[in-house]
Amino acid sequence: MLSCTMEPRFCETDALGHINNTVVPMWFETARGPIFEVFNPGQDLSKWNVILRKIDVDFIAQIYHGHSVEIRTRIGYVGSSSCVCEHEAWQRGELVAKGTAVMIYFDFAQQCKQEIPSALRAELEKLS
Amino acid sequence: MLSCTMEPRFCETDALGHINNTVVPMWFETARGPIFEVFNPGQDLSKWNVILRKIDVDFIAQIYHGHSVEIRTRIGYVGSSSCVCEHEAWQRGELVAKGTAVMIYFDFAQQCKQEIPSALRAELEKLS
Amino acid sequence: MLSCTMEPRFCETDALGHINNTVVPMWFETARGPIFEVFNPGQDLSKWNVILRKIDVDFIAQIYHGHSVEIRTRIGYVGSSSCVCEHEAWQRGELVAKGTAVMIYFDFAQQCKQEIPSALRAELEKLS
Amino acid sequence: MLSCTMEPRFCETDALGHINNTVVPMWFETARGPIFEVFNPGQDLSKWNVILRKIDVDFIAQIYHGHSVEIRTRIGYVGSSSCVCEHEAWQRGELVAKGTAVMIYFDFAQQCKQEIPSALRAELEKLS
Repeated sequence: MLSCTMEPRFCETDALGHINNTVVPMWFETARGPIFEVFNPGQDLSKWNVILRKIDVDFIAQIYHGHSVEIRTRIGYVGSSSCVCEHEAWQRGELVAKGTAVMIYFDFAQQCKQEIPSALRAELEKLS
Repeated sequence: MLSCTMEPRFCETDALGHINNTVVPMWFETARGPIFEVFNPGQDLSKWNVILRKIDVDFIAQIYHGHSVEIRTRIGYVGSSSCVCEHEAWQRGELVAKGTAVMIYFDFAQQCKQEIPSALRAELEKLS
Repeated sequence: MLSCTMEPRFCETDALGHINNTVVPMWFETARGPIFEVFNPGQDLSKWNVILRKIDVDFIAQIYHGHSVEIRTRIGYVGSSSCVCEHEAWQRGELVAKGTAVMIYFDFAQQCKQEIPSALRAELEKLS
Repeated sequence: MLSCTMEPRFCETDALGHINNTVVPMWFETARGPIFEVFNPGQDLSKWNVILRKIDVDFIAQIYHGHSVEIRTRIGYVGSSSCVCEHEAWQRGELVAKGTAVMIYFDFAQQCKQEIPSALRAELEKLS
């Protein structure tokens, strides 16, 4: 499992007084950084090889400014050309949001998905 | 059906050269503005009565800077205390993303969901 | 003078109930789109030729969600290799923010500023 | 002097391949968090007492994804009802951006600036 900590920004609050819902996908994207690194060590943009196919987010409890948020991320599933990341956001001991992201191993030159090779699969499965 | 147009901002691109995925939930939230207005005419924050329970987004095609994006939104379902918004993003005649948002009719004072009254239900169903 | 209209987004509000200050530089960047177009017709990223050197923003009055904002932009000055954009944000007939942006005509290959040719200068001066 | 560290987010890059300019004001706002705390211990929104009057940012070098950024912040000046924050952004040993923010000690009920009391002034000056 991967873990990272976000300090909510004041500009991420909204007029209802809490962290705006649209911020959570940004936090989850950031939490996938180490997974981008597994797909593409060094993250050279010219060698980028993964695209996002789908996300969902469940908003479970209000998220507050002034308290750090831990994002826990694991790989839930590795398919032939895709993998599913599972994210949880925890604040003050409470699960406040969770979500998934379906990523496709992608050949940008050919503009098509490609099969995940076994060595990469093994690396991804270490994060499950 | 509701429709609004977004002009992608340069700051919404990312290093892969397209609109970043995390931008789409912001556009969809903005597209729900008229639905917030149905729930809470005038959108007085002290009378806010809806929360977001869940979103999902399918990223279908790359979205480009320099071309406007039409967001089409309709109410897909009205339950006893929730409703589901369905969004589509179209750019240059192509469906580039779609998603849903589950909204809960909510009593902030009691911090619990409440039943959607029939007059509000009728207004929401006009947007289906 | 250039003019464009922004519809403030709910996610651009903050917990103080108004549009967050950090949003204004994004609106001003978007308002400079037609100026990027003058520098680099078609805005091909591989031919990008301008960088931002400096911005400032004066926050004059609170900016509200629910009311459109007009951004008025003009070129205030064209130097040998730079130009200054002047922005104003107007909401409900009131000047709510203003600012400037210093842009440098830039050779990305050489990583250095370059002299603005007279034809480009003439185009920029039309926006003054 | 205050110091905090930002990990640039992928969604903060833009199509030119670097961190977008509009991100820096967000980082600087976040860096002012401890100063908001000095003005309003506990940061209770109903007691908020400071507004932002003006910002400027100098963009000195390109900022990259993949390397942390240290934001150094100090109080440069305390006036009768305002103070000036000075920010610097450092990445890989290089000063990449700097800027200032003028904050006004503000009475939201009366909607006017107010004089900074000597105890608060002394706290602010500790951050110079």
